[in-house]
Amino acid sequence: MSVPHLTTALTGPLLDLERKILAAQPEIEHWFRNQWQEHTPPFYGSVDLRNAAYKLAPVDMNLFPGGFNNLNPDFHPLAVQAAMTALEGYCPDARRVLLIPENHTRNQFYLQNVAALSKILRQAGMVVRIGSLNPEITAATTLELPDGSTMVQEPVIRTGNRVGLADFDPCVVLLNNDLSSGIPSVLVNIEQTLLPPLHAGWSTRTKTQHFTAYDRVVNDFAQLIGIDPWVVNPYFDHVDGLDFQSREGEEKLAATVDQMIQKIALKYAEHGIEQTPFVIVKANAGTYGMGIMSVKSGEELLGLNRKQRNKMSVIKEGMQVHDVIVQEGVPTMEIVDDGVAEPVVYMLDRFVIGGFYRVHTGRGIDENLNAPGMHFKPLAFATPLTTPDCDGSPDCEANRFYAYGVVARLALLAASLELEQK
Amino acid sequence: MSVPHLTTALTGPLLDLERKILAAQPEIEHWFRNQWQEHTPPFYGSVDLRNAAYKLAPVDMNLFPGGFNNLNPDFHPLAVQAAMTALEGYCPDARRVLLIPENHTRNQFYLQNVAALSKILRQAGMVVRIGSLNPEITAATTLELPDGSTMVQEPVIRTGNRVGLADFDPCVVLLNNDLSSGIPSVLVNIEQTLLPPLHAGWSTRTKTQHFTAYDRVVNDFAQLIGIDPWVVNPYFDHVDGLDFQSREGEEKLAATVDQMIQKIALKYAEHGIEQTPFVIVKANAGTYGMGIMSVKSGEELLGLNRKQRNKMSVIKEGMQVHDVIVQEGVPTMEIVDDGVAEPVVYMLDRFVIGGFYRVHTGRGIDENLNAPGMHFKPLAFATPLTTPDCDGSPDCEANRFYAYGVVARLALLAASLELEQK
Repeated sequence: MSVPHLTTALTGPLLDLERKILAAQPEIEHWFRNQWQEHTPPFYGSVDLRNAAYKLAPVDMNLFPGGFNNLNPDFHPLAVQAAMTALEGYCPDARRVLLIPENHTRNQFYLQNVAALSKILRQAGMVVRIGSLNPEITAATTLELPDGSTMVQEPVIRTGNRVGLADFDPCVVLLNNDLSSGIPSVLVNIEQTLLPPLHAGWSTRTKTQHFTAYDRVVNDFAQLIGIDPWVVNPYFDHVDGLDFQSREGEEKLAATVDQMIQKIALKYAEHGIEQTPFVIVKANAGTYGMGIMSVKSGEELLGLNRKQRNKMSVIKEGMQVHDVIVQEGVPTMEIVDDGVAEPVVYMLDRFVIGGFYRVHTGRGIDENLNAPGMHFKPLAFATPLTTPDCDGSPDCEANRFYAYGVVARLALLAASLELEQK
Repeated sequence: MSVPHLTTALTGPLLDLERKILAAQPEIEHWFRNQWQEHTPPFYGSVDLRNAAYKLAPVDMNLFPGGFNNLNPDFHPLAVQAAMTALEGYCPDARRVLLIPENHTRNQFYLQNVAALSKILRQAGMVVRIGSLNPEITAATTLELPDGSTMVQEPVIRTGNRVGLADFDPCVVLLNNDLSSGIPSVLVNIEQTLLPPLHAGWSTRTKTQHFTAYDRVVNDFAQLIGIDPWVVNPYFDHVDGLDFQSREGEEKLAATVDQMIQKIALKYAEHGIEQTPFVIVKANAGTYGMGIMSVKSGEELLGLNRKQRNKMSVIKEGMQVHDVIVQEGVPTMEIVDDGVAEPVVYMLDRFVIGGFYRVHTGRGIDENLNAPGMHFKPLAFATPLTTPDCDGSPDCEANRFYAYGVVARLALLAASLELEQK
C-alpha cells in the first residue's frame, strides 16, 4: 500500500503534531497505562479519523464495529491476543460466547465482518455461536458467504435471567448490534456478562455525550504533549427539538452552524489555514452514514427541499431525528488510489489492532465518506499502528500510523468515560 | 517458508496429537486462562522443542531468551502488545527500563538480540537504556552493530537500594543475563522491580527443578485432553556428585542412562516406534549448548577420553559441572532446507510471540543443535503460533504451529511453578 500522499503545502503543521507525538511516545504510553488503570476500555471500538494535515481528529466513534473483515489478515494475531487479554479481564472463566449481530442477514459485507469477528474469538479460545434478534430467524438458519463458507444464525432465547440458544448457555454475550431501534427486552437484566453494556447502544448513547467526554480527555492530553487541543479535537455543538419534516428548529440549527463557521474561521486565521470552513450536521445517535449533511453556512439548512429533509430526518431502523450534533468539518487531505480517503482505526480492549482506509473516488475532501449505497473501498493498513519507527522521519508510514493509533485511543478513552457516567 | 517436511511414515501419531490439541482448543485456552489467574508467567522465555512425529516435547526452557533478532519482524507488534500487557501487570507506573545484557560485547548475534529487545520495550512506550555488569565497561561505550546502527552500554551503578546508570534511575530492571557465574551483589535486594527474579538465573535454577514442575503441569494437561503424558514429556533423571575430570560418579551416571534407555525402549514398544532410544546428558544448570552429550548406552560414558571429559565438565563462564540431567532423547523429524531443524518458541508474559527454526545441515536427528562454534541458521516462522485455522487440516502450518505454541506454554507454566517455589 502506498503511503498516503499529502499535498506538500499542507505537510508542515501535521509533521509538527506527529513530531510532538513521536517525541512524547514514552510519556503518552505511560499516560495511557495510567488511564487504563482507572478506566475500563470498551470491549471494542472503531474510530473514524480525518487527517487535514493541520489537524488530525476523530469524527466518529463506533462501539459496535462492523468492518473486521476489512483489516489486514497479517495483523489478525494482534486481535486474537487483545481478545485473550480482554476476556481474561472481564471473565477469566468464560468458555462460550454468544455473538449477537445486526439483523441484516443479506448484507454480505456485514456477514463477512461477523465471520471475521467469530474467528478472532475462536482463535482466542472461545466456543462461539451466533444468536440473532431478527424476528425472521425462527430456527437455525444457514447463511452463505462470498468465500463459499457458511454461517449459522439461531434465534436468541431467554430462560430466566439467562440468554442463549436452544442448546447453548453462553458465559459471555457479545453485542455487534448497535441497538439503534431500542433495547430488546430479551437482553435486559441478564446475569451473564454483556459486552458492551446496553447503554453503549445508539438507543441510549449520543455523539454529543461522546465528544463532551472527548473534550476532557483531549484537554489532559494536549497539556501532556504541549499542543493546542484544537488540532486533535473538532468543535461541536448540540441542537435538539428539531423536526425536519415540519421545519421546526431550522432557524436555531442555522444559527448554531453560523456560529461554528465563525469560530472555525478564527482558528483558521490563527493557524494560517486557507480553507473554507464547513460544518457537518448529523443525527446525534446513529450510524451507517445516514442523516448527515455537510454545509458551509446556516443558510443552506433553511431552504431544504423535501428530498433533503427526508434524508436528514430518518436514520437506521427508520428512527426519526430530532437531535443533531453540529460538528466542525475536518477536510481529509489523504488521497489513496486517486480517491479521498479517511482512516478507520480498530481497537480491541485497550489495543490498536489495525485499520483501513475508506476510499471514495466520487467524493470531495469535505464530504462524508461513509455513505449508504456508495460502497467505499476498504484498504487495509499495511503497517501496524503500534510500532513507531523511533529512528524514522515523522511522515514515514509507521510513524503516521502511530499518531493515528494515539488519537484513536483518545477517542476510546473518551468512550470509557462516557460509558462510566451511566 | 516451506512447511516442515515430515516423513510420511511418521506423520500418523503426531497428527493424532495435533488433532487432539486442535479439537480441545477452547478447553486448552480456558485451562491456560485459569492457570494464569493463579500463577504469574515469567516476564519472557523461550522453549526448545523437538518434534519426533510420535512425540512433541520441550527439551529446554530459557528464562533469558537471546534470539529476539531471529523472530519474524512481521510479528513484532505481537511482542510489543505482550510487553505492554506484561509491564502493565508488573508496574503500571513504570516509565524507564534498565536492560542488563550478557557480558559478551563482541558477539554480534547477541548484540542484535539486545537491540531487538530494546526496540520492543521502546515501542511498548518505555525509555530504555542498557546497563552492563561487564567489568570492562567502565564508561559509556558505543558498540557497532552489523546493520550500521550503534548501541551504548554503560556501567551499572548501585546507589543505596537502587540500581541504575550515572544519570538514569530506572523503574524496572530487566535481566537478559542468565547469571551463570553467580548473583552479582549490585543486584541483591534492590527496591526496583527486577524481571525475571534473581533466582531465575542459572546460578540458582536447575533443569531438573524445571522438569519436575513440568511433570505436574503435563499430568494435568494430559488428563484435560486425554493423551499419554509421555507424548509431550521426555523422561528425565538427576545425577549429582559427579566429577568428570576424576571420573567420580561415572558408574552411577552410566547406570542411570541404561535404566532410562530401557524405559524408553518399553514406551517405543508400546507405541510401535522403531527408533533406537538415546539419552541426552547435560549440565543441570546452564545453557549455550555446552556440557551436552547424546548417548545410546551407559557404556559410552565409561570410556570418555580427556577431550570429551573436558567438554562435559566445563560450561559457560568456566563453571564446573557436578550435576547433570539425564533426559530422554527426542529425535527431531523436521527437515527444513535439507538440514535437521528444531523449533524454538518465544513467549513474552503469557503470550506466544513467535519463533524460529534452528537448522543444522551437519548434524543428525539425535544430536543437540544448539552447539557452540556451529552457527545454526535461524529461520523465522512465517505463521504466527496463536492462530490455528479451525477449518484446516491438522498438518497445515498454522495448526502445527498452534500445537507448538501450546506445548511451549506448558513449559512456560512449569517455569512459573518453578519460580514460585523459591
